[in-house]
Amino acid sequence: MRYLIVFLLFISSQVTAQVPALYNHVSNEVHLLHSKVLQQDRQLYIQVPHLDSAAANTALPVLYLLDGENHFHLLAAYIEYLSHWQVIPPMIVVGIISVDRVKDLTPTNSVLNFSGKVDSSYKTSGGNEPFLTFVQQELMPYVEAKYKTSAVKILAGHSFGGITTLNCLLTRPSLFDAYIAISPSLWFANKFVLHLTEKRLPQLALANQKLFYSVGNEDGSFRQDVVRFDRLIKKGRLKNLEHRYKEYPAESHMSEPIPAYYDALRFIYKDWKPDSVK
Amino acid sequence: MRYLIVFLLFISSQVTAQVPALYNHVSNEVHLLHSKVLQQDRQLYIQVPHLDSAAANTALPVLYLLDGENHFHLLAAYIEYLSHWQVIPPMIVVGIISVDRVKDLTPTNSVLNFSGKVDSSYKTSGGNEPFLTFVQQELMPYVEAKYKTSAVKILAGHSFGGITTLNCLLTRPSLFDAYIAISPSLWFANKFVLHLTEKRLPQLALANQKLFYSVGNEDGSFRQDVVRFDRLIKKGRLKNLEHRYKEYPAESHMSEPIPAYYDALRFIYKDWKPDSVK
Repeated sequence: MRYLIVFLLFISSQVTAQVPALYNHVSNEVHLLHSKVLQQDRQLYIQVPHLDSAAANTALPVLYLLDGENHFHLLAAYIEYLSHWQVIPPMIVVGIISVDRVKDLTPTNSVLNFSGKVDSSYKTSGGNEPFLTFVQQELMPYVEAKYKTSAVKILAGHSFGGITTLNCLLTRPSLFDAYIAISPSLWFANKFVLHLTEKRLPQLALANQKLFYSVGNEDGSFRQDVVRFDRLIKKGRLKNLEHRYKEYPAESHMSEPIPAYYDALRFIYKDWKPDSVK
Repeated sequence: MRYLIVFLLFISSQVTAQVPALYNHVSNEVHLLHSKVLQQDRQLYIQVPHLDSAAANTALPVLYLLDGENHFHLLAAYIEYLSHWQVIPPMIVVGIISVDRVKDLTPTNSVLNFSGKVDSSYKTSGGNEPFLTFVQQELMPYVEAKYKTSAVKILAGHSFGGITTLNCLLTRPSLFDAYIAISPSLWFANKFVLHLTEKRLPQLALANQKLFYSVGNEDGSFRQDVVRFDRLIKKGRLKNLEHRYKEYPAESHMSEPIPAYYDALRFIYKDWKPDSVK
């Protein structure tokens, strides 16, 4: 019996010892959510701000972030820091971890890569519809049941995540209040999203949504497609869509998200004041 | 006895239960280091990159960050992300947590605030010398004993942390390879650091150090002092100091660190390539 106690004490101290003190003044939790729509478990990184007791009951906006495995840490740091200094409101960040990103983050099936060559890694492409259905019907209710959320929702994505964001704006315009598309891969599937923009933009049922989109120093045709998208947006003169386009000639496709996500947050909350309700 | 076991099992399971799964693919550890020089315990946040087994033996540069409690999360995210995409090398980030920041991060004693009024919260000011001695004689040896570090060291600070960085450059120019001073409070103590720059810059024993400094939209005299510092640096034509000055007219004193720390890292490593040794 004595041995058992020693053993249990040993386990107990081991458990403690294996958990080093971590810098973590926000809650960055890993959640697992089963999706019936996608028929798979989905991993989520969720950052929830620590609020003063006076503000503990505040309803929080939620930023839904595609490619969470790449960009969660960055967005989490921005949002924690900017909200601490009252530049933007405190909000929840939900990073959606990719399982098959080519599948989830493309609007239609195409096996052609940027160079126009057949690429077998693209064969699962075209899953935007079920993925966005998962976001709307399963992920949002999960987050809204678990936390005190306000009505404000933001969708943010980069590259394939960028075309997913734009596809969502064009097919479910009222699902989010703000859309962020960093270097959207508009070339994909014979410029599928660019054509969709041309077709749907004039009739889009908007209600003061915000849209930020950008491009880095990617080669000519990649950038040209984003410039074409920008022309369509500007030509549209949509009263209920506030938009900003920014080019980052000094940034590559992979470094651009750092300044661009920052500028996107500042754009979305440019009129926000600390005493605003949302 | 049985109760004791149940109790121990309970403790054991509690310890486990209190540790939610956290998003943490880097090691963000909290260290406590006793300083004989300062006669106090100092808390540190340390991020160490997870390297592939092939790279596990790489000697890492170290970035020492003042005001760690404010900026660690941001710098940790930048460095993790940029090194993952091979824009900068993987490196260790050491965030020094403030105890009495007015004391540690000022070069001389002065009780006058920015408006020239006596401010009792400034009465402990003037502790740069013992603080930098702590960094050199205790903190660096601690970090270098604990991790496999390269010779490359960076010092980064904002506001009072910015004048501390510049004071370190002027008084211990070879202690770091690169110095980052975001909106240094050059007004402090009748422009103490500005006068020191005028006096010491011409004789400074430099060996290819790098210096990044910047200013936001602070009011006129704050910015004017940084502009004066910039003139001294440019007038100096120092062969062994590569410097960059950047102004952020759209950023406040507190939001400026976000773009400025990013630009500082890109400046310091602008010539770095993934196959570089350091």
